[in-house]
Amino acid sequence: MTGAPRKIVEVLEGKTVSPPPIWLMRQAGRYLPEYRETRAKAGGFLDLCYSPELAVEVTLQPIRRYGFDAAILFSDILVIPDALKRNVRFVEGEGPRMDPIDEGAIRLLNGDGVLDHLAPVIETVRRLRRELPEETALLGFCGAPWTVATYMIAGRGTPDQAPARLFAYRFPQAFEQLLSLLAEISAEYLIEQIDAGADAVQIFDSWAGVLGEREFEAYAVKPVARMIEIVRNRRPQAKVIAFAKGAGMNLKDYRRKTGADAIGLDWSVPLSFAAELQKDGPVQGNLDPMRVVAGGVSLTEGVDAILQALGNGPLIFNLGHGITPEADPAHVAELVERVRGMRP
Amino acid sequence: MTGAPRKIVEVLEGKTVSPPPIWLMRQAGRYLPEYRETRAKAGGFLDLCYSPELAVEVTLQPIRRYGFDAAILFSDILVIPDALKRNVRFVEGEGPRMDPIDEGAIRLLNGDGVLDHLAPVIETVRRLRRELPEETALLGFCGAPWTVATYMIAGRGTPDQAPARLFAYRFPQAFEQLLSLLAEISAEYLIEQIDAGADAVQIFDSWAGVLGEREFEAYAVKPVARMIEIVRNRRPQAKVIAFAKGAGMNLKDYRRKTGADAIGLDWSVPLSFAAELQKDGPVQGNLDPMRVVAGGVSLTEGVDAILQALGNGPLIFNLGHGITPEADPAHVAELVERVRGMRP
Repeated sequence: MTGAPRKIVEVLEGKTVSPPPIWLMRQAGRYLPEYRETRAKAGGFLDLCYSPELAVEVTLQPIRRYGFDAAILFSDILVIPDALKRNVRFVEGEGPRMDPIDEGAIRLLNGDGVLDHLAPVIETVRRLRRELPEETALLGFCGAPWTVATYMIAGRGTPDQAPARLFAYRFPQAFEQLLSLLAEISAEYLIEQIDAGADAVQIFDSWAGVLGEREFEAYAVKPVARMIEIVRNRRPQAKVIAFAKGAGMNLKDYRRKTGADAIGLDWSVPLSFAAELQKDGPVQGNLDPMRVVAGGVSLTEGVDAILQALGNGPLIFNLGHGITPEADPAHVAELVERVRGMRP
Repeated sequence: MTGAPRKIVEVLEGKTVSPPPIWLMRQAGRYLPEYRETRAKAGGFLDLCYSPELAVEVTLQPIRRYGFDAAILFSDILVIPDALKRNVRFVEGEGPRMDPIDEGAIRLLNGDGVLDHLAPVIETVRRLRRELPEETALLGFCGAPWTVATYMIAGRGTPDQAPARLFAYRFPQAFEQLLSLLAEISAEYLIEQIDAGADAVQIFDSWAGVLGEREFEAYAVKPVARMIEIVRNRRPQAKVIAFAKGAGMNLKDYRRKTGADAIGLDWSVPLSFAAELQKDGPVQGNLDPMRVVAGGVSLTEGVDAILQALGNGPLIFNLGHGITPEADPAHVAELVERVRGMRP
């Protein structure tokens, strides 16, 4: 890179950038008509993830429309179980399905061939870095071991992730073995994304909120810390955002314990607490995605509250969870304008 | 009542009782074969709630088996929308359904006839107080306005309660009107339960965890505080437990702000934070229900950790959420024995 560092990288280095850089989780998604059009050309959802041409196209769409400060690789956290041959498929209107894994199958699991399977995703990253505007950061990502494991054990998404919690109580050794394997494979996968041109990577622990205190330490903090350790040992400059959705007060030491550069905050995190967390390091978040659907005063009030509470420190503006298909693209334009029009 | 006060009432008055009294959320439920037998005799699920004879029977079943310190009225939080003529029905294997409510319908909503509709539930409370052992406390309950409203707006249970969050952003006035009506009706309903013999009542705010900071104040704290105010104005001795599941750090001032005697804690609340909360007043909780399914070391370790952290203050031992159908009744017996065998 020749010019000034990309804004999101500056924030990840601890700098306050004003107005704050902005991107939205799931910004390449069904709320955009151009996404739905490209999506219709792919066969299944995973075909879209594994087609560099189409994945590049959908990743770029929101950048063209809104000029976000970061593009995030279009992919899915479940490409890892797919690469582990767990027969992942996306059932229209029902969400993901895969073969539920048991103790015996965990013992037989290994990472052979995983990176080969994911080569098209890495190719997408490579092409993206070439096609993105110079000033736009490129983010890679993967799921955190706990969150990926909840799907692998239940074979699907589940309320409260009860099957994975139960499995962890019943078979703690097998469960830790699964998390270790996922941590190692995922770390390798992130390293390849970084080498292919990702400026930073985000680790999504979407279901961290259902873990009790000790389980949060063992299943959310420890594997993510291990991943970041592996990545940093090999790529000391790597920048990592860790997003433990619903983790509430467990976020207090989450950045320090995992070694992440920044932490993502979901919309339920009180802004007073977010401001405290920001004293320790950069934060990302945390507008309720429903405010983008609603628009109007609920959108501007939500944006302003975040800017007021967190705008004077290292902040990456984002939603508190992925944007939903019902969001009006015009509201997204208003959101970006509001953030960029922030008075210093 | 002639003898000593019931243990749970003592705890609700702020006393430390050792070993702590115990009951389990959803203790009258599908994990018990005798429940499934009685359930099969009723027509639909709501028929069971509205049949004093059968509802008394299932309420007493776990008391006979385990001698819990409290019986909780067998009913459902959705009897309120049912009484409001929202066409509530329980679809086997799919959960509750009702007619989704909109702005116009909220304007037409009124509490006429609600208490008449709920008379069979009150009759159940009356009979229970006669049939329960003298030392067993009787708990009444209802849903908190926010949680009940999430079902009324979506017409069903929903992930992240997105429809209700969106509705509240779009139509704040109508939404507050709905919460006010629910608060007033629910308070009257609780007063009738108390008059019929309930020693205490619990307000379930099962979906409080998806609310942002300001929404938590407006939609979780305020309506529950209003309910407790109405109840206390008319029944100054009333004892109230407020359970805001998933509320995380919002629990900090929840007891003081709502005026509840005790607060319920879900299993994700760290025990160190729970101990802090206990300094302000009695707490109830918070074993992960999956530990009861798993049994063995995961059960005893979980119980012991709670007793160690919270056993020396005012504590009502409970789960952090309802017991699940998969729980082994033998594990429940072990749980009760472990809590009662607590070394002081």
